[in-house]
Amino acid sequence: MTPIYDRVALIGLGLIASSMFWAMKRGGLAGEVVGTARSEDTRKIARDIGLCDRIVDTTAEAVEGADLVVLCVPVGVMGAVAEEIAPHLAPGATVTDVGSVKQAVIEAVAPHIPEGVHFIPSHPLAGTEHSGPRSGFAELFDNRWWLLVPQDGTDVDALNRLRTLLEAMGSNTEQMDFEHHDLVLAVTSHAPHLIAYTMVGVADDLRRVTDSEVIKYSAAGFRDFTRIAASDPVMWRDVFLSNKEATLEILGRFTEELFALQRAIRTGDGEHLHDYFTRTRAIRRGIIEAGQDTDAPNFGRVTKKE
Amino acid sequence: MTPIYDRVALIGLGLIASSMFWAMKRGGLAGEVVGTARSEDTRKIARDIGLCDRIVDTTAEAVEGADLVVLCVPVGVMGAVAEEIAPHLAPGATVTDVGSVKQAVIEAVAPHIPEGVHFIPSHPLAGTEHSGPRSGFAELFDNRWWLLVPQDGTDVDALNRLRTLLEAMGSNTEQMDFEHHDLVLAVTSHAPHLIAYTMVGVADDLRRVTDSEVIKYSAAGFRDFTRIAASDPVMWRDVFLSNKEATLEILGRFTEELFALQRAIRTGDGEHLHDYFTRTRAIRRGIIEAGQDTDAPNFGRVTKKE
Repeated sequence: MTPIYDRVALIGLGLIASSMFWAMKRGGLAGEVVGTARSEDTRKIARDIGLCDRIVDTTAEAVEGADLVVLCVPVGVMGAVAEEIAPHLAPGATVTDVGSVKQAVIEAVAPHIPEGVHFIPSHPLAGTEHSGPRSGFAELFDNRWWLLVPQDGTDVDALNRLRTLLEAMGSNTEQMDFEHHDLVLAVTSHAPHLIAYTMVGVADDLRRVTDSEVIKYSAAGFRDFTRIAASDPVMWRDVFLSNKEATLEILGRFTEELFALQRAIRTGDGEHLHDYFTRTRAIRRGIIEAGQDTDAPNFGRVTKKE
Repeated sequence: MTPIYDRVALIGLGLIASSMFWAMKRGGLAGEVVGTARSEDTRKIARDIGLCDRIVDTTAEAVEGADLVVLCVPVGVMGAVAEEIAPHLAPGATVTDVGSVKQAVIEAVAPHIPEGVHFIPSHPLAGTEHSGPRSGFAELFDNRWWLLVPQDGTDVDALNRLRTLLEAMGSNTEQMDFEHHDLVLAVTSHAPHLIAYTMVGVADDLRRVTDSEVIKYSAAGFRDFTRIAASDPVMWRDVFLSNKEATLEILGRFTEELFALQRAIRTGDGEHLHDYFTRTRAIRRGIIEAGQDTDAPNFGRVTKKE
């Protein structure tokens, strides 16, 4: 395949950036991929494992001559990175980001983007509980959705070119405005993550049930929560702080419903519980039919005894 | 292997009973396995797929001459089934159950057990989101914990024989008193299930985000919740109604913590969030080291596009 971009710069080398590199390499989608990370340690690991065609020490070097720059850093530092790279961006380049929140990123990044550079925010709905430069793999985006959040007046050619890359990496794409994006993600991602973190924290904190019991007996349901609650703490701190309103709105709805179910338990209202539990099965079927999860029992996971 | 029991009766033919049959068959652990279910449809499916050596129409027939009887019905009907089978139990037989709650089952079942029959409550911490006679498989119990909840004065030989069977089916076993069991399960299973059901219900109920969006974009975290929330509604209704106190206690702790985290989000207390999210990673590591979950990203699941 002819490369879609001549030079792609990846700023930050975690799960998403490293997966992007392997996916672009798989498809021959970029002439050269240049990567950088703030930590020397991360840059060293990247060099050791052959991540990116070239690893450089500064963001300025990374973006030099790049026709696509991808910001793959926690949401809370997007603005600072944008400010840092702004003077070094090539005219006509496209800048995108992969942050889980869009309004806050747009507010932080857009003011720094020079005239003649296209800023097109985006968000891949793909991930695992692992993080860091070693965690990436080429298949991460296959059949996952990558949301594009263009602003008014976005250059159509720049948008189409970015979309072509994302789809060539395996994604499905969709456009959405930032407000709706942040609400959709509060439901499908941010609230579930906070709830999982909370449940794991509660289990860890109980005196009457020991951690070793929680660990041994986790297969009864709890272990699924621990996977989500093993996600990168810095990334998630920033997500919640920068998608405050939508997350708190959904959590408000959640506690309302939870109280109604607790009340049904207390009063012995089996019908309410049964109806509620029956309704939620349909969503699961929809997700499997849409190819977004496996129907294999327990996700088909294999756990072996050492 | 010499059979551990000459005749095992399985009452109720869902996920656990069907997995028990395949696990006993795999190991040659029972001379004959007789099964029954209340619904004619279930009995027909069982006969069609070769589940059990013999399928009979009544519980009375099923337990006749059985040296082990396993109650695999929802917790809410355990008492009624015990009453029904009581006059037909063979002297010296062992009766166990696989209910997720122990105090309520003991209160419902024990009074019906005749003199000379051993009642030893138990609970396999194993399952999937699937249910019914077709959902069982021989490996379900491999390296999972099966808790034994013997009461005062339990016959040691009967207990050891039952334990031998459970371990030969692949389980690890542990003994626990019913009160502690019900609290441990409230943490590791009952509260997480209610929370997952709630989150899926909330997503299904929002007007501003459509179900089709929730389904498409579920890979961002939400889909894990839907697996748990696809579990059998009757079973779970009964679990919550019969483990009220412990479940409500844990849910109380959960909402307390959730409110503290919501407050940290509202006030922008990033340190609190970061510390909390860091702490929960340790539990995940413990579960993986204990062989109770896989370290493969996203549980190693494979989702394919049609």
